[in-house]
Amino acid sequence: MVIGIKSPEEAERSFEEISRHAKSHSSNVEVEGVLFEQMHKGVEIIAGAATDGQFDKTIIFGAGGILVELLRDITIKLAPITTLEARNMLSEIQSQKLLSGFRGNKPLNRDAIVKILDATSRMITENPEIVELDLNPIIANENEAIAVDARVVLTAYPSKRTQAHASTQRLSFLFKPQSVAIIGASSAAGKIGHEVLKNIGKYDYKGAVFPINPASESILGIKAYANILDVPTSVDLAVLTTPAKLAPTIVSECGKKGVKVVVIVSGGFKEAGSADIEKQTVEAARKYGIRIIGPNCIGVFDGYSRLDTFFQSHERMMRPKAGPVSFITQSGTFGATILEWAAESDIGISKFVSYGNRCDVDEGDLVEFFGNDPETSLIGVYVEGLDDGRKLYDTARKITSSKPIVVLKAGKTGLGSNAAKSHTGWLAGSYPVAEAAFRQAGMIVADNLEDFFDKIKALTMQPLPSNTGLVMVTNGAGPCVMAADQIERLGLTLATLSPTTKAKLTSTLPPYCLVTDTTIDLTGSATSRDYHTALTALAEDPNVGVLMPFFVFSDTPLDENIVNVLDQVATSGKTIIACASGGPYSRAMSKRVESTKIPVYETGERAVAAVEALVRQAKVSGRSAVSG
Amino acid sequence: MVIGIKSPEEAERSFEEISRHAKSHSSNVEVEGVLFEQMHKGVEIIAGAATDGQFDKTIIFGAGGILVELLRDITIKLAPITTLEARNMLSEIQSQKLLSGFRGNKPLNRDAIVKILDATSRMITENPEIVELDLNPIIANENEAIAVDARVVLTAYPSKRTQAHASTQRLSFLFKPQSVAIIGASSAAGKIGHEVLKNIGKYDYKGAVFPINPASESILGIKAYANILDVPTSVDLAVLTTPAKLAPTIVSECGKKGVKVVVIVSGGFKEAGSADIEKQTVEAARKYGIRIIGPNCIGVFDGYSRLDTFFQSHERMMRPKAGPVSFITQSGTFGATILEWAAESDIGISKFVSYGNRCDVDEGDLVEFFGNDPETSLIGVYVEGLDDGRKLYDTARKITSSKPIVVLKAGKTGLGSNAAKSHTGWLAGSYPVAEAAFRQAGMIVADNLEDFFDKIKALTMQPLPSNTGLVMVTNGAGPCVMAADQIERLGLTLATLSPTTKAKLTSTLPPYCLVTDTTIDLTGSATSRDYHTALTALAEDPNVGVLMPFFVFSDTPLDENIVNVLDQVATSGKTIIACASGGPYSRAMSKRVESTKIPVYETGERAVAAVEALVRQAKVSGRSAVSG
Repeated sequence: MVIGIKSPEEAERSFEEISRHAKSHSSNVEVEGVLFEQMHKGVEIIAGAATDGQFDKTIIFGAGGILVELLRDITIKLAPITTLEARNMLSEIQSQKLLSGFRGNKPLNRDAIVKILDATSRMITENPEIVELDLNPIIANENEAIAVDARVVLTAYPSKRTQAHASTQRLSFLFKPQSVAIIGASSAAGKIGHEVLKNIGKYDYKGAVFPINPASESILGIKAYANILDVPTSVDLAVLTTPAKLAPTIVSECGKKGVKVVVIVSGGFKEAGSADIEKQTVEAARKYGIRIIGPNCIGVFDGYSRLDTFFQSHERMMRPKAGPVSFITQSGTFGATILEWAAESDIGISKFVSYGNRCDVDEGDLVEFFGNDPETSLIGVYVEGLDDGRKLYDTARKITSSKPIVVLKAGKTGLGSNAAKSHTGWLAGSYPVAEAAFRQAGMIVADNLEDFFDKIKALTMQPLPSNTGLVMVTNGAGPCVMAADQIERLGLTLATLSPTTKAKLTSTLPPYCLVTDTTIDLTGSATSRDYHTALTALAEDPNVGVLMPFFVFSDTPLDENIVNVLDQVATSGKTIIACASGGPYSRAMSKRVESTKIPVYETGERAVAAVEALVRQAKVSGRSAVSG
Repeated sequence: MVIGIKSPEEAERSFEEISRHAKSHSSNVEVEGVLFEQMHKGVEIIAGAATDGQFDKTIIFGAGGILVELLRDITIKLAPITTLEARNMLSEIQSQKLLSGFRGNKPLNRDAIVKILDATSRMITENPEIVELDLNPIIANENEAIAVDARVVLTAYPSKRTQAHASTQRLSFLFKPQSVAIIGASSAAGKIGHEVLKNIGKYDYKGAVFPINPASESILGIKAYANILDVPTSVDLAVLTTPAKLAPTIVSECGKKGVKVVVIVSGGFKEAGSADIEKQTVEAARKYGIRIIGPNCIGVFDGYSRLDTFFQSHERMMRPKAGPVSFITQSGTFGATILEWAAESDIGISKFVSYGNRCDVDEGDLVEFFGNDPETSLIGVYVEGLDDGRKLYDTARKITSSKPIVVLKAGKTGLGSNAAKSHTGWLAGSYPVAEAAFRQAGMIVADNLEDFFDKIKALTMQPLPSNTGLVMVTNGAGPCVMAADQIERLGLTLATLSPTTKAKLTSTLPPYCLVTDTTIDLTGSATSRDYHTALTALAEDPNVGVLMPFFVFSDTPLDENIVNVLDQVATSGKTIIACASGGPYSRAMSKRVESTKIPVYETGERAVAAVEALVRQAKVSGRSAVSG
């Protein structure tokens, strides 16, 4: 390649040079021609498209050259993208300054770049034979954006992806069966088959329960049967706790019996190297139209029917009350923890599914079911590895504007992905693609277990904010400093108080209070009356969207009337998220505050991360431009 | 600038062009000469030095050009640096691939770059008139590293930094005073002056207590005095809860009385815009050699003398038992939370200081005191804004190899820094410089409040690992997937088990257990016996440095004998960090496990972050190369 040719003579010389160079490698080379292109000056950017194993066609945009290669400063969306999504991509890269006139350059022509992204999206979507597309570099300036090099990878076996549609068929029998058989029910306490039977048969589930065990007449006082085919009445749901190798046969028997859904609690399938048994089990189920949950899972819980298929005893694991949250989890351990945290925080659960190896019913199916479920108004999703990520994306995208979906994905790194594989037999895929897809679908992405629960708690307890202005009120400013860091990190903003509000605060609060640009610091001398004065003034300010009261409950001047103050401020309709940390007294006070439906978080960072979920959901449900 | 000159003719032409160009701006320009330099080919990197307000001279190294400008891909150390530190800087940038032969380049000559960093360090250290030094770009290749452009910023007022030495004078009177006066003691319950007196006078502190209040004969049954000068015996420590404006006078009176240390609990000083009162107070104290803690703080707690100057009642705030941890905090709220968490986790506290506005005694003084304190074996530091960061750095650097120092700094972002300023009157400075200084001094940097406590807990309860190989054992693999993500993120490594250990595990564990490359998954069927089998085999493997058992305590097969199993495994001397989450039963079990001195964390991420503290301290105390 020769660049910077300025005259016909230089062009001639370059032509000869290139031809000579090409022939110097081998005398067989025939130079058919040489490509002349206009020189372009500007900033290097890249656009491209790639095919992901879990999410199919994706569009990539990024800063060019070394930035993308060394630092992966790119943004990803699933194809096809809308023009608005293309435009949003431009502000999603870290080095977006590049586009706005960096180092004395004029701002780039964004429309020209958007046009390229649109075209890239169309190309990869409409041409199944293209698996990869790389426009690198694109030279962009204030007038135009020109791809000066391109690479297209074709496949010899083009296949348009078969659109997998979520199927919710028969899933209602999973949550509200009239009758349940426990295959592998055991009379030995501590055995999984015993504990599952006990939880289904001896607590609040009202349907018929049939222990299946060839060696027992009755278990836990419930009449047992040798085989499911011996059960005299119909059976909606079967729970398997038997060894993996028996599963294909048992599922066939379930099919003959007319069972609708089978939950396979047992492990020993794909995750243990026995993918063949898992496959045979699925084939047996398909023959009879049976849906399978699992294997290698803790199964299902329904807050209303009170059915659960867990092997964790009631003594060791609390069950939450019925309520609006449904969630699915690939890991049973993770799910059990969230259920207990929900129980302790008095958050009601509608439906819960731990699906382990996911051999049949998958995330897309369950999210679709919850989307249509009148008992569900908020959905949580914990995944490690995905099989059909695109199906989850397509399903979630339809739902998020009316029901928030909070998602947490593990297996983000290479090591985590390997751990996921040995856990449920699924490799976790590329996290950046998954995260991009989740955000594009309007889902709320959680950082970790605590953040997942924190966000669900906020979304369940509080209304969405009408605007994004945050204000912090405190009697101890330390946690607000860390909260301020988090506010900036998450791209949230503090409210600019109206002059009226500022004047009202200064004139009505005692002199020890400090009204600053970042915090209303009532100081350690603050009483509940001071909080009342501050919060009511702030609640009247239209610039304030979210009230964030921070409490040091152990500071003696703060009296317990604060609970009533908050209850009263809550009637303003503003979003309120509180923060308080400490020992037993503080925790007891936080619990009293939470009884007024104001969630309390232990640190400022966690409180702000919860606010972010509300702000984001407000955008998603308002159908306004959602970026990032 | 003209580059790529190939012949004398081109040089002549370029000279004329440059001269003409220069004169075209103004006819007054006289061109004295033109600089010719040899062309260099290679990778662009930068080196430099800058003067930081809190940490003085710093050395910077980074990738060149756009990488450093847009993405701040740099690493920082305080000058002077050792050659080893210079070498470490090369592997600390994100784009370190650049140096190792990126895009077909040969690996760069690292020695040449190290030489430049060494020279930069000497230059900035030895020449007080240089405040900034910018070698940008340096062109580096496999043979050499040449700075092709340089900028030096000089000051007209060179001043070598006066080395501030930590002073621990009189600080022992802060923790173990024979007598304490509470100035502003009040008989009105709920008032700060009442609560402070009650906590000092009515609980376990054994020294003499003197309430000072001109209007009372006695408060809480303790004889009161109108003025500290009226107290008949000597007074070591005075605690002020009086309005700020009285402080200069009162401190003078304390001086006349021979008081050694004054704790000013009251606010209303610099943080409220009254820097002048704060200054007068310090001047009064200096006159008499009095040391001041505060103002605007909750003061001091000593686990042994049982003195505390808090205004939080015992009913609302637990006090921890005596023990090895000392810590300082700029925020009282933060400090109170950590004290209560310590009390609940049965972690003993030696000394605690909340220092608020820090008008006299600062971080360096206190850390120095703790470094020499036989009652302290671990130090925690929470800071928002620093005044003399270099003093803290110098002090900490001497201590970290023998006593771990865990540090958390808030005010990382612009917004957080502003919040810090309105909190204690100090702007928080540049976080990257502070973090670099902390790491260079061998301190352990925490991410947030919980991580700060988690790391202290691990360092207090567990021995340092002899090597860095981690191994996870679990009865529910979900949390291990997220832990694996964290292991990779924090640069830790899983142990490679010896063939003997693998064989032993496979032959002795029941068939339902899965021994994989990332996890020993005992599955939901696991009993305490299975944990015993796995953990004892792993403890015998020299490749294993850290045992990480994960528990789903609610899984019924897991019996409570697990506590004894762990107690037994602990005798192996391996580092053990556990993880378990859930509700009341799980929490009760975790508490029983912690009674064996094995800390239990609620999530895998937090457990791994705690392990990182131990691994890092092992490096620091082993005096091996500590990078990053």
